[in-house]
Amino acid sequence: MVDSQKTPERYRDSGNGRYRVVIVGGGFAGLYAARKLGKDRAVDVTLVDRRNYHLFQPLLYQVATGALSPGDIAQPLRAILRRNENTRVILAEAVGLDPVARRISLNDGGTVDYDTLLVATGARHAYFGHDEWATLAPGLKTIEDATEIRRRILIAYEAAEREADPVRRAEWMTFVVVGGGPTGVELAGALGEISRDTMRRDFRSIRPADARVLLVEALDRVLPTYPENLSRSARRQLEGLGVTVRTGAKVTAIDEDGIEVAIGSDGTDRTERIPTRTVLWAAGVQASSFGRKVAEALGVEVDRSGRLPVGADLAIASHPEVMILGDLAIAKLQGGKRVPGVAPAALQEGNYAADSIRRSVLGEMPEPFRYRDRGDVAVIGRLSGVADIRWLGRFGQMSGLPAWGMWLGVHIVYLIGFANRLVVIIRWAWSFLTHGRGTRLITGEPHLPPIKRPKHL
Amino acid sequence: MVDSQKTPERYRDSGNGRYRVVIVGGGFAGLYAARKLGKDRAVDVTLVDRRNYHLFQPLLYQVATGALSPGDIAQPLRAILRRNENTRVILAEAVGLDPVARRISLNDGGTVDYDTLLVATGARHAYFGHDEWATLAPGLKTIEDATEIRRRILIAYEAAEREADPVRRAEWMTFVVVGGGPTGVELAGALGEISRDTMRRDFRSIRPADARVLLVEALDRVLPTYPENLSRSARRQLEGLGVTVRTGAKVTAIDEDGIEVAIGSDGTDRTERIPTRTVLWAAGVQASSFGRKVAEALGVEVDRSGRLPVGADLAIASHPEVMILGDLAIAKLQGGKRVPGVAPAALQEGNYAADSIRRSVLGEMPEPFRYRDRGDVAVIGRLSGVADIRWLGRFGQMSGLPAWGMWLGVHIVYLIGFANRLVVIIRWAWSFLTHGRGTRLITGEPHLPPIKRPKHL
Repeated sequence: MVDSQKTPERYRDSGNGRYRVVIVGGGFAGLYAARKLGKDRAVDVTLVDRRNYHLFQPLLYQVATGALSPGDIAQPLRAILRRNENTRVILAEAVGLDPVARRISLNDGGTVDYDTLLVATGARHAYFGHDEWATLAPGLKTIEDATEIRRRILIAYEAAEREADPVRRAEWMTFVVVGGGPTGVELAGALGEISRDTMRRDFRSIRPADARVLLVEALDRVLPTYPENLSRSARRQLEGLGVTVRTGAKVTAIDEDGIEVAIGSDGTDRTERIPTRTVLWAAGVQASSFGRKVAEALGVEVDRSGRLPVGADLAIASHPEVMILGDLAIAKLQGGKRVPGVAPAALQEGNYAADSIRRSVLGEMPEPFRYRDRGDVAVIGRLSGVADIRWLGRFGQMSGLPAWGMWLGVHIVYLIGFANRLVVIIRWAWSFLTHGRGTRLITGEPHLPPIKRPKHL
Repeated sequence: MVDSQKTPERYRDSGNGRYRVVIVGGGFAGLYAARKLGKDRAVDVTLVDRRNYHLFQPLLYQVATGALSPGDIAQPLRAILRRNENTRVILAEAVGLDPVARRISLNDGGTVDYDTLLVATGARHAYFGHDEWATLAPGLKTIEDATEIRRRILIAYEAAEREADPVRRAEWMTFVVVGGGPTGVELAGALGEISRDTMRRDFRSIRPADARVLLVEALDRVLPTYPENLSRSARRQLEGLGVTVRTGAKVTAIDEDGIEVAIGSDGTDRTERIPTRTVLWAAGVQASSFGRKVAEALGVEVDRSGRLPVGADLAIASHPEVMILGDLAIAKLQGGKRVPGVAPAALQEGNYAADSIRRSVLGEMPEPFRYRDRGDVAVIGRLSGVADIRWLGRFGQMSGLPAWGMWLGVHIVYLIGFANRLVVIIRWAWSFLTHGRGTRLITGEPHLPPIKRPKHL
């Protein structure tokens, strides 16, 4: 898979004798590559990110639902890499690539030259051609997304509390999550818990437990990448939290006070309108804008989501000095299977890229990327979740308490920053004991929705 | 001081037999009043706030300097008051007062009727007639203020790192804090620590320890409400952290790349320009906008900052059914001394208001407010601070370690929320051991300053 002819070109030395690795994106793939290259005196590492922190995205939905603070799941990149003296961090957005000069350009007008370029700028959710839905149904990829979703959920309860009209009140107390993958399942489960537990005694005019939470998925089951029995289990666990699961339902329209879905496997059986003021989006994949620019500059054909195909060396076939890592890549394994777009895969790709570069600098042959599938785990709520630890075979398919326990352990271990780990453990333990969520803050200027007939008397 | 003739009018019963107390503002004064009234079946309590959380303002500078997260020092008002079944919380801004109907109006168009109104909407910093300085020199009163200040501090270091021109680099690495009260001293001390400790190994082109931190105060000493020897001690401790203290320096102009101060006690000796890109404002007092509306509606003459004078019963003389609490009030004690605008005073006023209302409902005579001055404490940095515990006399005047220890203890005890206390203890312990600050996030869309000659190569 890896052509030895490419090696000299791909790992050409820089003038000062140090090999220049430029990494764009400080997510799992980029950060793990940087960490592994950070002690290597033969290379110079430059990490470019438009944010000054690494974000632990798997816990972002907990920020969106008021269980954790943004600072608990983010760590400054400079702090993580401070001891790596061969590494510098640049806070900027990469906006262009010149593959002949081997140079990227940044939004501040600066440029950086590379011998090997690692592109790990990830992907966002996609609205399937309906970009006008973005403001009506925010997705969950950044800290700003998470605090915006938190604000909308909390404002909806506040608006319901003071709304006298029962129809409008019901609209405020209906929450629709679009997309039945892990993020959608976790969001819907958390919304179910918020209405049943967290908010139970917080209001005087409404009963938060009357809230309706709907999870809408176009395919015929939730968690479609899991075995079918676990999808069924996830659905039962969600329903146990009061979540209504609508599979085979495709979103056809979203507006200020509702969402329209086409029901049925072919989407033509009938259309249903769900009146709601809060729609959250957890569907679709769309390559980052720098990813698209890289594809254009290198003349690479991308898939429908804009992702770039790479070989088993994670490099672009025509440009072996450019590696694509993480969610932005379509990496085919030797058996023809695709590497999934999940955090553990990105992390392994980052480590692989670092190893591969070090081998080449030492004149050794790079080996093809091997993905170790440790399995999947998704949490649904208190003491519930599903896990599919594939190397354990049938014994690795777990539901409820064992899956939940495994989820907790895995996320604590991979969270970066010792203080963050302790803080998250405390917030979780406290939430578990009290059914509370401590960070339910409406931040930013509070934009209260207009109400028609206020009734505070 | 309290005229018994006023009692019947002030505590008139409502139609349904329950006495209606409306509290505007969920800061220390409003929240402590609500908590104390929360178990009383004879009263109905309505707490109105435009935020959905109580903010522990004394630790806000720690959010601004990356040591704590907003969620660590804020607690949802509904969560705090959930068990008080006589209490409802309204998320809205009070915008008007009809003293004849005894009714306040809210920005959502709703109204709330009261028998007694507690106005505790606080005060903001003031720019002494230069409102155009607000965007150039942000103050520190809200969570949004704190994250904006944090963003500016971090962006300044990032900009310095990539600035090739030594003059402009020095501008980015100069931080000016205006106002030598507790907030200014704490901010300047934290900035000194950030440059010397926290950021020490984070950059490759700059030495963060080269940063200049200036504290500018118009009076002749910092912490002017403390005894003079403690002001001197605070100054020495600040200088030990590398902070330049400029007393007798009055700000005369602020623009994008500098600040002008007039030096000398009468402000006319000479003018000096300090080139800087980061000015933080910690001076002045200005009543909240609802406070001004209350004063207008009641025909009360306010002081220069817009604060309302109250009697020893904390009520407006002409309207004994309206009490003003916290920073918005000018409360004169029986000896003629003024109650200071600090958190412990607001907290005591809140408790007093609740007691006073309960006594009146029971037909008892209210007693005048007595302020227990527990003393002041300000932290400057690691192991340093000043404290003036007045009831201990000269022995209560402390500097350095004992003051620092007392500050830690007091702030942990008064912070609301058990989980928040543990989280803050962990973040502090971790920062103490590692000299780190875990929440140095640049949030919001990163607005990088334009640079003229980028040099990433």
